[in-house]
Amino acid sequence: MKLSAKIMAATVATLIGTSAYAQEQDTKVIGVSIPAATHGWAGGMNFHAKQTVERLEEVYPDLDFVLATAPDPGTQVNDIEDMVAVRNIDALVVLPFESDPLTPPVQAVAESGAWVTVVDRGLSVPGIEDLYVAGDNSGFGRVSGEFMVSQMPDGGDIVVLRGIPTTIDNERVDAFTAAIEGSGINVLAMEHGNWNRDDSFTVMEDYLSKYPHIDAVWASDDDMAIGVLAAIEAAGRDDIQFVLGGAGMKEMIKRVADGDPMIPADVTYPPSMISTAIEMTAVGLTSNAAVSGTFTIGSVLVTQDNAMDFYYEDSPF
Amino acid sequence: MKLSAKIMAATVATLIGTSAYAQEQDTKVIGVSIPAATHGWAGGMNFHAKQTVERLEEVYPDLDFVLATAPDPGTQVNDIEDMVAVRNIDALVVLPFESDPLTPPVQAVAESGAWVTVVDRGLSVPGIEDLYVAGDNSGFGRVSGEFMVSQMPDGGDIVVLRGIPTTIDNERVDAFTAAIEGSGINVLAMEHGNWNRDDSFTVMEDYLSKYPHIDAVWASDDDMAIGVLAAIEAAGRDDIQFVLGGAGMKEMIKRVADGDPMIPADVTYPPSMISTAIEMTAVGLTSNAAVSGTFTIGSVLVTQDNAMDFYYEDSPF
Repeated sequence: MKLSAKIMAATVATLIGTSAYAQEQDTKVIGVSIPAATHGWAGGMNFHAKQTVERLEEVYPDLDFVLATAPDPGTQVNDIEDMVAVRNIDALVVLPFESDPLTPPVQAVAESGAWVTVVDRGLSVPGIEDLYVAGDNSGFGRVSGEFMVSQMPDGGDIVVLRGIPTTIDNERVDAFTAAIEGSGINVLAMEHGNWNRDDSFTVMEDYLSKYPHIDAVWASDDDMAIGVLAAIEAAGRDDIQFVLGGAGMKEMIKRVADGDPMIPADVTYPPSMISTAIEMTAVGLTSNAAVSGTFTIGSVLVTQDNAMDFYYEDSPF
Repeated sequence: MKLSAKIMAATVATLIGTSAYAQEQDTKVIGVSIPAATHGWAGGMNFHAKQTVERLEEVYPDLDFVLATAPDPGTQVNDIEDMVAVRNIDALVVLPFESDPLTPPVQAVAESGAWVTVVDRGLSVPGIEDLYVAGDNSGFGRVSGEFMVSQMPDGGDIVVLRGIPTTIDNERVDAFTAAIEGSGINVLAMEHGNWNRDDSFTVMEDYLSKYPHIDAVWASDDDMAIGVLAAIEAAGRDDIQFVLGGAGMKEMIKRVADGDPMIPADVTYPPSMISTAIEMTAVGLTSNAAVSGTFTIGSVLVTQDNAMDFYYEDSPF
């Protein structure tokens, strides 16, 4: 009975479906595949992806979106294969969980003739994607260093926390070091806090016991800054004038907006780069604008003046 | 009489204008300032700018656009000052006629707090713009060289025409030279055709008289390719298998689409980069997407398969 009802419905759809079919022909489908997350940078990235899909479904009635969030690389591979097989996507926006396992399925999408936009982490084989959207790690370090110099015109003693040992971390630290060169700012120590609050708490505890006077801290990441601030508070130290994190975490942006002297600024590495990637892919499918290429998202200095432009109340990050 | 009519109109507007004023408050204005042109690459750029403004006025009812085309740098400076004084623009998209004279007025726009997007030619002072959209000259040379290698698997003798001596030309030629290295392709000669049809005709005439056998020509620009083709035809030579231009001129894209063996491909340096810049600026004003940064527009290989994607029937270029 159910089956025949289905067949009836299908027949009716065929009979009355000509104009609907014509309409479907014009509708293009963009698949968005990202790692799932409930907190941190990836949480913010999920928030912005969802918000952008909602916005663009209103802006462009002829675009459909499929958004899939994957808890692991294997699921992400399946998500992408399903997008092609079930939804016949015209374009894929992917932030790869890991480069190696995601390279073959994304390459297959590109070879099928669909547009491919890769975000943040590159694939293992160059040249697969039509558009690559990524952060600017050198710019992140340079802007951070320039801010330090602006705050310490007569120089001073700082400590630095580095991220997980990676190319990303090296690029940031090299640019920071170049930016403070000759400024009179003296780096007492540089250890890896691994973009982790607890690790950074421990590193900062160690710094505080070693150095009786520290003027400022380049925590280089907002999660690390939170660990650093906790260690300073636990030690009851009042020589440290400020801590500079980075990424654009909501809590830190709020402290900048509120004029907290310990958090006078932040430097963006925005999770909303996923929005940029989806928006540009939509522009590519709906206009004549050239959107092949590489978009390097700038790291912007956030101060009390512009902080609210970077504050997203409903975002988890 | 006329003046009092004006005053009356203004009074009426004030009286009934509350909701209109509220609406005006939400409307943001994007100024677009570009060099005027009736032909060539700049003509295509003008076509795409106009088309994009028309498109976006429909897509975003809350955005207004002011498009000004200037015949010289002085006029462009005035256009930009007017956009600020008369229209109180929220954002400026500018393709500078020349870097030096345009730098102070664009800097003033940035300092007023408006968003600044610079296209193609940079300003004389770094860091003024929020977003920089430009072509990829190294990519242009690399893609061109890779195509030559793919067409001449056993090597061969080619001649090259260079543009006006500039950094742009050097970047293109260096990347081309690197791409053909070790391929067996032998460059008989490299002279400057200055991105000009007549100059290129003369250079090619000279090549044809010097070299009795030439397998292919890297004209490196569609205007130069037209000069080269005319010289080949005038000489009645049939040894040359193909000519590779570049930029995406309509006539050349059409020949690629039609399967003309002399023009088997083209490499883009798209005038529609102005559209990309306007679109991204609009995205920045209407969404949370991060659009600060540098967008390097990729140079794409156009072959018979995808040529119609790059053919704009109504464009002069």
